[in-house]
Amino acid sequence: MARRSFWAWGLETDEPTPEQQASAARRASERYGKTIEPVRPPSLDEITLRAPRIKPPAALAAFCKDDTYDRAAHSYGRSFIDMVRAFGRQFPNPPDVVAYPRTEAEVVAVLDWCASANAAAVPFGGGSSVVGGVEPPGGDRPVVTIDLGQMDRVLEVDQTSRAARIQAGVLGPSLEDQLRPHGLTLRHFPQSFEYSSLGGWIVTRSGGHYATNHTHIDDFVESVRMVTPAGAWESRRLPGSGAGPSPDRMVLGSEGILGIVTEAWMRVQGRPTFRASAGVNFPTWESGAEAARLITRAKLWPANCRLLDPGEAEAAAGGTGKEAVLVIGFESADFPQDALIAEAVRIARECGGVVGDDAIRISSGKDEEVGRQGSVGAWRNSFIRAPYARNSTMGLGLVGDTFETSITWDRWPEFDRSVRAAVQEALQRVCGGGTLTCRFTHVYPDGPAPYYSFSGLGRKGGEIEMWREIKRAASDAVMAGGGTITHHHAVGRDHRPWYDIQRPAPFTLALRAAKKAVDPQGILNPGVLIDP
Amino acid sequence: MARRSFWAWGLETDEPTPEQQASAARRASERYGKTIEPVRPPSLDEITLRAPRIKPPAALAAFCKDDTYDRAAHSYGRSFIDMVRAFGRQFPNPPDVVAYPRTEAEVVAVLDWCASANAAAVPFGGGSSVVGGVEPPGGDRPVVTIDLGQMDRVLEVDQTSRAARIQAGVLGPSLEDQLRPHGLTLRHFPQSFEYSSLGGWIVTRSGGHYATNHTHIDDFVESVRMVTPAGAWESRRLPGSGAGPSPDRMVLGSEGILGIVTEAWMRVQGRPTFRASAGVNFPTWESGAEAARLITRAKLWPANCRLLDPGEAEAAAGGTGKEAVLVIGFESADFPQDALIAEAVRIARECGGVVGDDAIRISSGKDEEVGRQGSVGAWRNSFIRAPYARNSTMGLGLVGDTFETSITWDRWPEFDRSVRAAVQEALQRVCGGGTLTCRFTHVYPDGPAPYYSFSGLGRKGGEIEMWREIKRAASDAVMAGGGTITHHHAVGRDHRPWYDIQRPAPFTLALRAAKKAVDPQGILNPGVLIDP
Repeated sequence: MARRSFWAWGLETDEPTPEQQASAARRASERYGKTIEPVRPPSLDEITLRAPRIKPPAALAAFCKDDTYDRAAHSYGRSFIDMVRAFGRQFPNPPDVVAYPRTEAEVVAVLDWCASANAAAVPFGGGSSVVGGVEPPGGDRPVVTIDLGQMDRVLEVDQTSRAARIQAGVLGPSLEDQLRPHGLTLRHFPQSFEYSSLGGWIVTRSGGHYATNHTHIDDFVESVRMVTPAGAWESRRLPGSGAGPSPDRMVLGSEGILGIVTEAWMRVQGRPTFRASAGVNFPTWESGAEAARLITRAKLWPANCRLLDPGEAEAAAGGTGKEAVLVIGFESADFPQDALIAEAVRIARECGGVVGDDAIRISSGKDEEVGRQGSVGAWRNSFIRAPYARNSTMGLGLVGDTFETSITWDRWPEFDRSVRAAVQEALQRVCGGGTLTCRFTHVYPDGPAPYYSFSGLGRKGGEIEMWREIKRAASDAVMAGGGTITHHHAVGRDHRPWYDIQRPAPFTLALRAAKKAVDPQGILNPGVLIDP
Repeated sequence: MARRSFWAWGLETDEPTPEQQASAARRASERYGKTIEPVRPPSLDEITLRAPRIKPPAALAAFCKDDTYDRAAHSYGRSFIDMVRAFGRQFPNPPDVVAYPRTEAEVVAVLDWCASANAAAVPFGGGSSVVGGVEPPGGDRPVVTIDLGQMDRVLEVDQTSRAARIQAGVLGPSLEDQLRPHGLTLRHFPQSFEYSSLGGWIVTRSGGHYATNHTHIDDFVESVRMVTPAGAWESRRLPGSGAGPSPDRMVLGSEGILGIVTEAWMRVQGRPTFRASAGVNFPTWESGAEAARLITRAKLWPANCRLLDPGEAEAAAGGTGKEAVLVIGFESADFPQDALIAEAVRIARECGGVVGDDAIRISSGKDEEVGRQGSVGAWRNSFIRAPYARNSTMGLGLVGDTFETSITWDRWPEFDRSVRAAVQEALQRVCGGGTLTCRFTHVYPDGPAPYYSFSGLGRKGGEIEMWREIKRAASDAVMAGGGTITHHHAVGRDHRPWYDIQRPAPFTLALRAAKKAVDPQGILNPGVLIDP
């Protein structure tokens, strides 16, 4: 079985071939009008790591590793700068040991060891963080990365309540494979789905593929169990509760600084059999946004309501480059969605949207193909493959990334203008130009969650510094415009300067005190979210 | 203008007349087969309070009061034992001063004064707590109750995002009156609606009248501003965010121990014009529960999906006493609800429910009467008037109360059996018998929120002690069965013993540390939720 690549998205078999690299270089050369040559990807034998500063005690040795592959593969997440550094053979700060506990008792044992050795403990799920959330802290303190990958089972299924007890280390596909025989699904499909874990989704408040209503993993957590240095933090299985501040909501978004989530009871659902979808063209970005606003506020709760700006629509959904596309989708395990999509399309057309009646796809059976045709299907395929695309472009000197936020509708058009202006200005200054596109990944009655993608041609070897400058401009503009520094990518280390501004000051005191109370030595993911 | 009664639910004009009392006594006499005589209600001149132990500084005197009416009216919430004590002229522990700040600056000034005087500060919204949440703590420390009633304005309306900035002290009816001219509504109607406040809803995680989907006030908070001794805790207005643990979710349910909520941006909505409703009879409680489970899991998201057991249906919805009734209602400001109610009724009938086609009421216009006819309308009227009923029965020696929880479906039938057995046994032991009924106030895909009502005939003067014994039996059974000690009534002081069991142990450490960080002197609502 292929193992994970130590630098690329996916498995070692997903690392680019010379042909793929040459093809990517050719496309970049054409796009930027200059000859760009590919660079050979790193191989493990080129990587020399600092000697481990700590050794696991004998009792833990059976599930701890410190060889180059394991340490290199746990040195980074999968952000742009993570991949640039890994591709560039830069591994100055690997974890000293990678632990692969197989049971909660082994998680406890590792944390005990970290406490006694005063080592930092970095929880690691699928390793897909794009915000530096799994990167070891710098400094002299030894670092143990705790990979939950061995704890990957669905332990119990409760058909009556439609809930399942699931270990935190399971990755998306395995989770769905284990639920499928029961006719159930979590239906939480972030773009990182293949290589992100349930525990990772929970501690980063992951946003799922649903565009409206319950989509954040927050809404699917029925109860959660987290190991902390002060003992197990476990909530009751409850459909709802009003007993004090929610203990689960303090775990959600905690990014590993309070403890390590080992398992959770998750709300699951029947597999959808009724589907309806339509891709609606809009003459302007603004008219598409107005349709998304009105469809969401009508509480039709479409599963999908993604607006692509003309640039995104061209690149990802076969658009003309002049029109925006609103991808609308409904799904249900229980009843036909005809009336709901009809109402959504009616609203879209009233806002100037164009879609033929024959392009509205409705399936009242088990036809999974609905939602996989035309512009809707093109967008879907593009979404799934996107994380792999970067594997082939590494080393070409390109500088590109995504950033995402949310904002209330009243501020939206001006927010979009100011963010685009700031990023375009930075792209011009840093790269001499570049492209910037936007889509809505999620839409709420009170505002959209816009997701921006930018790219430009940088200087080989200068990508990180150039990225930092553009990222800073983008983040400053998001903050100044009233948005959140992250809608679903989390804070990690990379978003800290802006999260520190966004967070209410007394909440900082409360969160810091809460951490200190359950992790008095500060061993858990130090530097993520807050300073001690 | 009539002022609030210092002991009864509602205004002084809602205090019972001798005729109302006599009528209530006659009904109780018939029911329990013995002659029960009414007792004269208390009047203010019968109340003598302990002298205030503290005087406000001159700068605050303009909005502080310490006369008997104000102090007596802020000594209790409106739980059964609160009303028994107030009706019985028992006011051993009133607040020393009641402050009525008119601005946030005055809230800050009162908190500063409390800190310098080492007084306890008890935040007070509408005073409808049924869990001892607004009762002054015992002991020698002076107590200042801070009544937010003067801060009762809708400050800003954002039509585009459908949100409004609202002061925390506003009571339900005034809030709706202020939103109505804008064509908007919060549509949060707890049973305490008339005398509960926005701030109170937020800090107690109030459950609204929606039976499914977004109903807890939690879901309607876009951002919140809370004054703490460590400064203002204010979140950004955001439709969604994934930046760390939600600061708002720590305010929600904090019951005044972290600060005083002064205002919030709330998600509001258009006033519904499309409605559909049906009251479905079920031969058994169990078959009605199965229908509620399947309707909720189908994600039809009815606004109402309240199941009444045969006893509740008889008392509140004109039922036969043999059948359970499921009250189903849909509403929308935007589109006809015909298809949705048709699907809900189809499911209900498949589960054995009986409803004639002509009894399904559908309005696709502005006919507010839909949902107010037949068993549905009878239930609605009964729901609204229920809090007043107790005014007339005080002093008769009755012992009665409600308690509520939530539980997953897999445990439900056995949970219901064990809770009913425990409470019936306690009623038998304490009162020689009594009645116990149940309804679902809210239903989730993973379980119901059952709401129990009990009553029996106690001994005049012994009501509190008898209530405690039954309440203890009920709460113990709820805990043992896996439920929550409260789904939407909050914790306060009365639920503390069971909340202390329910709360994850490390979360207790975290919450206590968080409180200490923002309220180092522990002035805010001491004894509520946690001990210092």
